[in-house]
Amino acid sequence: MSSTLPAQTNLESERSLSAGSFLDPVKADIKAVEEMLNEEIRSDVRAAYAISGHTLSAGGKRLRPAAVILSARAVRNAFPAKTVYASASAVELIHMASLIHDDVVDNTDERRGRPTANVIYGNQISVLVGDYLLAKSIYLAAREGVLEVIRIFSKVTVGLSEGEVLQITAQGDPDTTEETYFDIIRRKTAGFIVGCCEVGAVLAEASPVVREALSDYGMSLGLAFQIADDLLDFLGDPAVTGKPRGSDLKEGKMTLPLIAAYRTLAIDDIRREKIAAWIRDPETLTPEAVELVVATIQECNGFAYARAAAVNQVAEAQAKITHLLPASPYRDSLCALAEYAMGRAS
Amino acid sequence: MSSTLPAQTNLESERSLSAGSFLDPVKADIKAVEEMLNEEIRSDVRAAYAISGHTLSAGGKRLRPAAVILSARAVRNAFPAKTVYASASAVELIHMASLIHDDVVDNTDERRGRPTANVIYGNQISVLVGDYLLAKSIYLAAREGVLEVIRIFSKVTVGLSEGEVLQITAQGDPDTTEETYFDIIRRKTAGFIVGCCEVGAVLAEASPVVREALSDYGMSLGLAFQIADDLLDFLGDPAVTGKPRGSDLKEGKMTLPLIAAYRTLAIDDIRREKIAAWIRDPETLTPEAVELVVATIQECNGFAYARAAAVNQVAEAQAKITHLLPASPYRDSLCALAEYAMGRAS
Repeated sequence: MSSTLPAQTNLESERSLSAGSFLDPVKADIKAVEEMLNEEIRSDVRAAYAISGHTLSAGGKRLRPAAVILSARAVRNAFPAKTVYASASAVELIHMASLIHDDVVDNTDERRGRPTANVIYGNQISVLVGDYLLAKSIYLAAREGVLEVIRIFSKVTVGLSEGEVLQITAQGDPDTTEETYFDIIRRKTAGFIVGCCEVGAVLAEASPVVREALSDYGMSLGLAFQIADDLLDFLGDPAVTGKPRGSDLKEGKMTLPLIAAYRTLAIDDIRREKIAAWIRDPETLTPEAVELVVATIQECNGFAYARAAAVNQVAEAQAKITHLLPASPYRDSLCALAEYAMGRAS
Repeated sequence: MSSTLPAQTNLESERSLSAGSFLDPVKADIKAVEEMLNEEIRSDVRAAYAISGHTLSAGGKRLRPAAVILSARAVRNAFPAKTVYASASAVELIHMASLIHDDVVDNTDERRGRPTANVIYGNQISVLVGDYLLAKSIYLAAREGVLEVIRIFSKVTVGLSEGEVLQITAQGDPDTTEETYFDIIRRKTAGFIVGCCEVGAVLAEASPVVREALSDYGMSLGLAFQIADDLLDFLGDPAVTGKPRGSDLKEGKMTLPLIAAYRTLAIDDIRREKIAAWIRDPETLTPEAVELVVATIQECNGFAYARAAAVNQVAEAQAKITHLLPASPYRDSLCALAEYAMGRAS
């Protein structure tokens, strides 16, 4: 396993510098969105502005705004720039809000190598500033006045919170099934990306068939992305991922690699019992325990299983748009974005 | 002071039974909203449904939906029932979300005599279900498709969270000014009521002048309502208000009666020092301390000052709509609603 780590490290650090060359065709668009975001988070309420600024300046690859823009440009019947940028900014605001609330909910103290808002400003204000950003995102979308975009956003946010509630209720349950796992990530991660792609399609006046293709693409991309993220949680370099290894375990979360491995363990396998105990009571988890879990997943082919699932989704994502969208640098970028989602953990 | 308590008790308990006879003209409308709310909170995610149901069934007077409906009916150029009900339901969902987040933020364990969601289900899920309801409210509003309504709602929610952030930052500061207090309640409470009245006006196709009158009415009503609430926190019967006396104090919050009293205390008055210490460190607050604060406010005419401020707002609210809206049972109800807001604490 260790042989894959250096490659990941290079991949990640390279991308966190440039956000990936596949975003080059929309570089100017992303810059416009970045400027709009810096404008939109302004508030005369100092703490609201400070936390929003803290979260925005932590960076991130702006993959969700990129998905909006690339989808719109790949369709290309129309490109109402102002509305596309506002919508792309709005999705990033929703994402920021969900990160802030997640960090409160999970008691996270570090993200992307920096202390989280809840650590610096406390849980109270962080909850409220998350609400503030959520509201701002709708305000921004409403200002531009495309009702269908607002419909998609609110649906995304409903699904996002439903998915997170499901995730919390599954925490601490070693018998979490693959079906439950997919139900969670479909709502929590993939539904959001679907929304980004659909918004791009709607604003570019895509035909229903093309809109559906981009929606399917988004679902597959989102699933691949989340599975890769869950792989990275076990295999990534903390210096690169910005969070400690095995942090999902520490929250009692069963993700695909572990689910796949755990179900292959014999009933009387002592590791089965140990893993179940750690998931039920993550407080007892030591760094050695994390290593034992990782070794077990590796031995039971849990990583291989999850990787295969993600690779399948990448292929499906690419197939969808290759068949139904005209060739363009933007379509190429969407294909590369799917590769990238996976590449982080291959 | 104790002489005013029995009257309050009767008033409150009577109203919690019937929600006030001034709501009679819109009884059927409120019932329709109640049914819609019961439909809208459904979710296949059990915990989301359970917490939403818990919060909804706790009751409350549905004053915000009532403000939407009464405003629309008082204008009366149009009454698109389905859209009005959806909008009225949406404001109640926003209100429910903000109550759930408030209870997390303030560590409240009881509301309306029942344990809060955060006590039963924990902070984690409560934060997420608050997000869920917020998103649902926009989803509902977007489904009905009136963009101006969504604009108003998102503006309201931005202001609401800004107001609460301001409030948190002012907590623990005995030198909180009247200006800061009004800045907070204008955003947090009154802005919300303004939004309700404006939504009613917009849906009833009010003229700009009438819309503005209802907006001004909402601002005054909201201010009166919050000042009355802050008075009740000191003077109300816990069995009726559903929260312990002096709970604002326990959160280190300076509200109008205390602000007005505190600034009249001489620099060397020992009570000044004591109050400042309790506000800075509310952990040290005993029931006897609460009584001392109440007695001090009474002696320094803090209650009278706050009551006068609320009474002024009620008069302004009534004047606005009496001059600019045609006579109708609905306009009468709006006037009665303003009396009611104040009556709770007079």
